Amino acid sequence: MAIESVAFIGLGAMGWHMAAHLPKAFSDVRVWNRTFSKAEQHAQLFSTTAVSLQQAVQADVIFSCLPTSQQVEDIIAQAPPKAGSIWVDCTSGEPQSAQKLAQSLKARQVAYLDAPVSGQTIGAENGTLTVMVGGDAEALAIASVAIQPFAGMIEYVGQSGAGFAVKAVNNILMAVNLWSLAEGMCNLKAQAVDLNAALKCINASSGQSGISHNIFAQRVLSQEFPLTFALNLLAKDAKIATDLASDSNTVMPVLQLTQQLLRSASNSLPQPSDFSSAVKLLEQWNQTQLN
Amino acid sequence: MAIESVAFIGLGAMGWHMAAHLPKAFSDVRVWNRTFSKAEQHAQLFSTTAVSLQQAVQADVIFSCLPTSQQVEDIIAQAPPKAGSIWVDCTSGEPQSAQKLAQSLKARQVAYLDAPVSGQTIGAENGTLTVMVGGDAEALAIASVAIQPFAGMIEYVGQSGAGFAVKAVNNILMAVNLWSLAEGMCNLKAQAVDLNAALKCINASSGQSGISHNIFAQRVLSQEFPLTFALNLLAKDAKIATDLASDSNTVMPVLQLTQQLLRSASNSLPQPSDFSSAVKLLEQWNQTQLN
Amino acid sequence: MAIESVAFIGLGAMGWHMAAHLPKAFSDVRVWNRTFSKAEQHAQLFSTTAVSLQQAVQADVIFSCLPTSQQVEDIIAQAPPKAGSIWVDCTSGEPQSAQKLAQSLKARQVAYLDAPVSGQTIGAENGTLTVMVGGDAEALAIASVAIQPFAGMIEYVGQSGAGFAVKAVNNILMAVNLWSLAEGMCNLKAQAVDLNAALKCINASSGQSGISHNIFAQRVLSQEFPLTFALNLLAKDAKIATDLASDSNTVMPVLQLTQQLLRSASNSLPQPSDFSSAVKLLEQWNQTQLN
Amino acid sequence: MAIESVAFIGLGAMGWHMAAHLPKAFSDVRVWNRTFSKAEQHAQLFSTTAVSLQQAVQADVIFSCLPTSQQVEDIIAQAPPKAGSIWVDCTSGEPQSAQKLAQSLKARQVAYLDAPVSGQTIGAENGTLTVMVGGDAEALAIASVAIQPFAGMIEYVGQSGAGFAVKAVNNILMAVNLWSLAEGMCNLKAQAVDLNAALKCINASSGQSGISHNIFAQRVLSQEFPLTFALNLLAKDAKIATDLASDSNTVMPVLQLTQQLLRSASNSLPQPSDFSSAVKLLEQWNQTQLN
Repeated sequence: MAIESVAFIGLGAMGWHMAAHLPKAFSDVRVWNRTFSKAEQHAQLFSTTAVSLQQAVQADVIFSCLPTSQQVEDIIAQAPPKAGSIWVDCTSGEPQSAQKLAQSLKARQVAYLDAPVSGQTIGAENGTLTVMVGGDAEALAIASVAIQPFAGMIEYVGQSGAGFAVKAVNNILMAVNLWSLAEGMCNLKAQAVDLNAALKCINASSGQSGISHNIFAQRVLSQEFPLTFALNLLAKDAKIATDLASDSNTVMPVLQLTQQLLRSASNSLPQPSDFSSAVKLLEQWNQTQLN
Repeated sequence: MAIESVAFIGLGAMGWHMAAHLPKAFSDVRVWNRTFSKAEQHAQLFSTTAVSLQQAVQADVIFSCLPTSQQVEDIIAQAPPKAGSIWVDCTSGEPQSAQKLAQSLKARQVAYLDAPVSGQTIGAENGTLTVMVGGDAEALAIASVAIQPFAGMIEYVGQSGAGFAVKAVNNILMAVNLWSLAEGMCNLKAQAVDLNAALKCINASSGQSGISHNIFAQRVLSQEFPLTFALNLLAKDAKIATDLASDSNTVMPVLQLTQQLLRSASNSLPQPSDFSSAVKLLEQWNQTQLN
Repeated sequence: MAIESVAFIGLGAMGWHMAAHLPKAFSDVRVWNRTFSKAEQHAQLFSTTAVSLQQAVQADVIFSCLPTSQQVEDIIAQAPPKAGSIWVDCTSGEPQSAQKLAQSLKARQVAYLDAPVSGQTIGAENGTLTVMVGGDAEALAIASVAIQPFAGMIEYVGQSGAGFAVKAVNNILMAVNLWSLAEGMCNLKAQAVDLNAALKCINASSGQSGISHNIFAQRVLSQEFPLTFALNLLAKDAKIATDLASDSNTVMPVLQLTQQLLRSASNSLPQPSDFSSAVKLLEQWNQTQLN
Repeated sequence: MAIESVAFIGLGAMGWHMAAHLPKAFSDVRVWNRTFSKAEQHAQLFSTTAVSLQQAVQADVIFSCLPTSQQVEDIIAQAPPKAGSIWVDCTSGEPQSAQKLAQSLKARQVAYLDAPVSGQTIGAENGTLTVMVGGDAEALAIASVAIQPFAGMIEYVGQSGAGFAVKAVNNILMAVNLWSLAEGMCNLKAQAVDLNAALKCINASSGQSGISHNIFAQRVLSQEFPLTFALNLLAKDAKIATDLASDSNTVMPVLQLTQQLLRSASNSLPQPSDFSSAVKLLEQWNQTQLN
């Protein structure tokens, strides 16, 4: 199947940049956003076409990138895609929703792929996102030409829901890496250790992580906690991971505890806060500041 | 002060390689090991000199690299170093021991530095270890010329005990990175996700860590668990970190739980086991195998 | 409304005794059980009447006491009760199921009460069970005359699902009381403390619990673990409590950890095992036996 | 040996009442307190004799009841008891301190018993305390006549330190019973369950505990948290229990987590707060109030 038209639904912090790469590969790129002026602005800047939702879902490949699975389900109920199309859902969504949508769209001869992305806005801007895909492998083989413009890596991970599951697990791992590093730093701070020097050591040792390299100095040790990824969204992702485990009776005590701590932080800190500010709860318990 | 002689006490898996770099910078390099034949073998291979313990502690700079702080304390009690020398203890030891030794050696006009290393045997062999140093900064300024031959980075982190503290925290962070990744993988396995593909995604995403890059595929997903760093030693390091926190009333619930899980694994698995085999406990609880 | 007929569905370990009290208050007592011979035996012994499921659901008040909510839903789907009747569900069930059933039965003019019981088989035999009831308060006012024959206490706790919620919370509290006492005992055992003497002290002190008084000596310190309440059912109840908390974003780290430990035990011990045998997992981690 | 004189050191909330019972059995009852006017007041009210510390430690049996083991050690160093006497330490102390004191006093032919008490001020007033005793069993046989006046139960639990160990474990069990009940109540509150009704059910069911019967309604559901036993003292007791476990490599994840939560609460709430106010932390995380 040759893809002639693509559409992108949801021009948020990520989707805005992702959609901007599509004209590199396609001449018919349709964009839609609830706040429609944003779609019009996108069209002007990136040579896409702002369309109605009904026109969007007539494309051969439709991308969605929305805050929650519920919103994707609502959109699809409101404007079902045409037979023969492929829906690529880049939301950080729920595996159960993916399974449900895959099944209901299949009845309409539409393939649904859960295809969440990782790499933050900078990766979206540079078109180097990691895309983890669950669903029908043949549909991915067709759709990947449409994903490639914004991807650094496209990885097929399993059946419907597998993509969302991997994303949720990745994010809760990020959370545990952040929280536990903060715990270790509280411990060192109580010994009057130089935290910047300690971080330098850890970054050159076996305890290093993406968080220790890219996040901890800039957001925590600086005490700046700049808002880029909201704590309540990370708490939502963590809940997706733990609910999934509950469904399968999988035991994961450290991640469960981490989810509880994230939820405590999300409940008791001001909204919105950057995900990194979860450590403020720990600072409070230890009557200290990590700087 | 010009350093004319150096000595290395403890030619184990790490010390063996570390001492082998010293002749690059010094002509008088003395080595000692409880099993003395090992010292003689080292002398033959690397142009060091196998000496008695009493001769070793007459060097200007004395390195020790032993399994526990207790053993370092016993050696020093048995063979006190000469006045004016610097003792560089590369053991993964206890901060309290460092404080005690620094104080008692100071009375003899000997400087004591806690200077544990990270980088595994390959780093020792290549002379690229990360050395995290606590104690007297002036002593480090003098001794660093003797440390450099085996170091990729020398970082001063604070007063006596700070080096050991950073090492203990690094190692418990490694443990939590390992354990939590295994938990996440159990969760994904229950969804029939392809674990190798999932790991590839995580390694290109925000949840990545040194463990996810360097350890998980080779040791866990392979189900090989090759013995290079013993689980009971990692459990000991974790206990150093949690005991330190208990002393200062520092709250760190995730690391405490991790220490408990490591101890459970260390208590119930065969000795010796590689640290990575801790995840076998989790596999048992979930009646699964991570492969 | 005067109740003229009552029915009891599910003559298991609890239901058998509960139903046996009903003839004290009613002349028309119908019993049904999947294995029908059990109903016939009950009828002979206690002057009840073994009936078909269709006859059972024609009673004015219908009791159910089954292993899971799913089974109750299946029965009701198969044999809907008559309009005007009251369904009293004594299962240790799921609050969401209670809400769903209450709503769907209301459409048929049937009131549904979730009314789980506590007190073990001995309480059922003696007719002294604690009954915690959720649902329509007016329906309870009518039905309580039918509940009283087997109850020591009938307590209205809130809307549909509230009864199941209280039961699930009670059971996970029992679990944490058991597990934490076992942990404390492992700690004391390592100090060579006399565990029976220690238990005597605790039972006369502030750390006492129903578990410490009634369960620990007989089941754990005796190392007998007699099967009366299956571990996998307790793990199910714990999961009801933690899933409920997840739905409402309630943070409860200690109960979450307890649920994880129960699940670990339930997954890795032989089936069926008494709930008290969960502590065998802890004994294994500590390489000890609590006796 | 006939006991002719007894002394009581430390007339705090507990000691004040305990010492008041001694004249029932002895004519020579000496009391000492750092704030000496308190001893004089005691003498007037209860027919005891206010004496100097040096006179106190000349008694045949000396009781101490102080906030920490450190203070007992300081007193004994300052005023060593006479040969042949028995020191009965009712402090909630550290097992290691008991072992050290028992050994050092034995060299002076003094027997040391660790004999902490449970039962709160009301039990002290009524002379019905539970006394858990570690140390030399023969010394206890002699001293018990002096303990009996304030005891409801005297229980020998093992060698030196065993009494303190049992007390610490009892108190951390009380803490976990309190905290987990509060968690369960947060869960029920989110379902709009009537918490007083729920507590009534739990108190008639398998999840009941001393805390659920005697503490929760009066202190937590009332939102009064009256100060009778300070949170930081309970946190200290919990630390004694977890440090003891760390020394023996005993794994007890639920109690460790509980200790962490208590410490978080103790660090972040105003001083002094009643131990029951620890649940305020949980209320904050859940943005709720348990009433």
